[in-house]
Amino acid sequence: MNNERTYQFSDNRESGKKAVFVAIRQNAPIARIDIAKQTGLSPATVTSITAEMITKGLIEEVTNPNQNAARRGRPRVDLQVRSDAHLVAGMKLTDKYATVVIVDFVGNRVAEFSNPSPAAFQPAEDTRDFLQETLLMALDDAGLTIKALSGVGIGLPGVIDTDTGLVRWSPTIMERDVPLQQMLHDVLGVAVFIENDANLVALAEQRFGLGTKARNFIVITIEQGVGMGIVIDGKIYRGTGGGGAELGHTKVHLDGALCRCGQRGCLEAYVGDYALLREASTTMGPLSGANPEQQMQLLMKEAQSGNQTALSIFQRAGRMFSMGLANVVNIFAPELIILSGERLQYDFLYDDDVIASMKQSIVQVAGPPPEVRVHKWGDRMWAMGAATYALEGVIDLELHG
Amino acid sequence: MNNERTYQFSDNRESGKKAVFVAIRQNAPIARIDIAKQTGLSPATVTSITAEMITKGLIEEVTNPNQNAARRGRPRVDLQVRSDAHLVAGMKLTDKYATVVIVDFVGNRVAEFSNPSPAAFQPAEDTRDFLQETLLMALDDAGLTIKALSGVGIGLPGVIDTDTGLVRWSPTIMERDVPLQQMLHDVLGVAVFIENDANLVALAEQRFGLGTKARNFIVITIEQGVGMGIVIDGKIYRGTGGGGAELGHTKVHLDGALCRCGQRGCLEAYVGDYALLREASTTMGPLSGANPEQQMQLLMKEAQSGNQTALSIFQRAGRMFSMGLANVVNIFAPELIILSGERLQYDFLYDDDVIASMKQSIVQVAGPPPEVRVHKWGDRMWAMGAATYALEGVIDLELHG
Repeated sequence: MNNERTYQFSDNRESGKKAVFVAIRQNAPIARIDIAKQTGLSPATVTSITAEMITKGLIEEVTNPNQNAARRGRPRVDLQVRSDAHLVAGMKLTDKYATVVIVDFVGNRVAEFSNPSPAAFQPAEDTRDFLQETLLMALDDAGLTIKALSGVGIGLPGVIDTDTGLVRWSPTIMERDVPLQQMLHDVLGVAVFIENDANLVALAEQRFGLGTKARNFIVITIEQGVGMGIVIDGKIYRGTGGGGAELGHTKVHLDGALCRCGQRGCLEAYVGDYALLREASTTMGPLSGANPEQQMQLLMKEAQSGNQTALSIFQRAGRMFSMGLANVVNIFAPELIILSGERLQYDFLYDDDVIASMKQSIVQVAGPPPEVRVHKWGDRMWAMGAATYALEGVIDLELHG
Repeated sequence: MNNERTYQFSDNRESGKKAVFVAIRQNAPIARIDIAKQTGLSPATVTSITAEMITKGLIEEVTNPNQNAARRGRPRVDLQVRSDAHLVAGMKLTDKYATVVIVDFVGNRVAEFSNPSPAAFQPAEDTRDFLQETLLMALDDAGLTIKALSGVGIGLPGVIDTDTGLVRWSPTIMERDVPLQQMLHDVLGVAVFIENDANLVALAEQRFGLGTKARNFIVITIEQGVGMGIVIDGKIYRGTGGGGAELGHTKVHLDGALCRCGQRGCLEAYVGDYALLREASTTMGPLSGANPEQQMQLLMKEAQSGNQTALSIFQRAGRMFSMGLANVVNIFAPELIILSGERLQYDFLYDDDVIASMKQSIVQVAGPPPEVRVHKWGDRMWAMGAATYALEGVIDLELHG
């Protein structure tokens, strides 16, 4: 058993191929024998899989210049991904804008682009049009056309069924059960892969972020809402039908505060922007900012300058958040929790008190509590997660399509 | 990809062997080719693994009498587990008693025995002595000696680190980090396997209960406390160091009711016996039963005869329980939830209202909510889970020890 391997797979050739590709991309240049060690596959299987990849132009051999002089005379041949094999795009959709990155097959960023959204909440067809328009603008900006792309990965908030490409529900789309993957494929003419945005952050953290060494970890994203990505035994955990990982809608108070989802007592109804601004309006009157973001900045400033009401609003949100975190730890006991997302600029959600309070609210066993790390990635990095997802989707198509 | 396979394994021979054994035990008599189909292993690998098992006397060939006449003349040879290969014991420890079952290598029950515990909460050495004494009494009762056993599986509540055999914490044992597995091995002289009791119920449900067809399911046990066993992708999920799955200590109310664990707002502090009796004592005075179980019976009777206070105590517990259930669904989106344990005789915890309330508190996506099934297994069935665990532990030792 090799505990250092970075990708888990079951005993079928499909996932073996993907594991080989991931091992090469993450460790290139890498020798076949080291791929075998990392993936747990037999050297013969690795030789056969890599031969197919070379024939298809996905990877290439390189002579390792740093070969150990003590080794026999035969030069050591390593493998690496061919950067020119494919270009893919990764997109992140939020209530405020769409972000695009275009990456080569190695994952090097070729171009990036951002486009403000005309509406935070819109019909599915408008969402499709907005995503298409943004992608075409990004390509145009980079001097490329859609024909240059082999795939597009898209991350958005909500419940996404990756098997069927359905958006079951998203806070940014009016309808339910939207076949967004098919709708976009129809207008773009390239392979489209859609996924929950927090899962894509988890994928990015696993592939090239803070989670590369953890087998079991959790990513909690704090943006418009509270999202969660769960990695169990090296794989993104997707509940039945793409459900699950709805930390923001776990209940922290019976019949508690009203949530945007229409239910009561959801964690989001205590830590989301709207929840804090709703409380602020009770005693502080309407805040003067033009939009929730500016209003939140104002409220934060009030708290920092000693306004006790503003302070108590943030403190309660922090305590509720620590309770939600503790529940996740009590259920999963992950090695690592990564807090990620733009709201982490408001440090009330992850300051030392909140983490300490979480650690006091978990079952006290002798083992150490999980490590908590904060990763203030921008949307560009979320889009990188989407690009990585597209890359791995293209690999699947190339190797078994 | 064969979605019907009943056991998941990674690409290493260790788990391949166990998968083959489980496939044979659950489907015997079974042909080698069908084992290959079920496990996803190659026919050559199955042939090699089964040859080793035959040599070691673990399984045997049988000629299938029902062979299809249309097939060629060669008789079809199936495999089955040799019932006489090993005897193992499974034990369940609660605050009230220990239960033992002795099973043969096929899993047939050979004997069973129950012994009341001298104390609900005792030092580790007393726990060891009580378990040893109970096992020896069970063996004696069955006309056997300890030498007849190849392994003993033990399930108990608490945080168990199966890798090290440590009881990190248990509500029935005074000390922490008790090396109970080693302590019992030292006095019994046979292989001992310890595990959290709810995980063993999950194992039993997976191997021969309601969970044989589900890849992702959750077992919630209601006994002295609230336990949970999580099966993800066909495997028991064990968090870091045996932690996790502590549903009873997830917080359902910030700074809420005091729990036996010393923290506040735990689910158990609202649905546990002690929580209900604590509430009852506020207005109804001390209940007359000699022990918590009798007092609970009394309180239940009061509620059934229309006592509004008693009724409201049960109703609140039911609502809190539905909130805890909804949180699990929001996080995992399992296909199936199995409610199990002796407290299910108090139907306030799983009546239609509670399940309906859970379904209203989960994120409303188009997919169906998980199926909820109630399994009022007795302690004997929990002990069967422990015996199954021991059987599979013995197989591990036989094949790789």
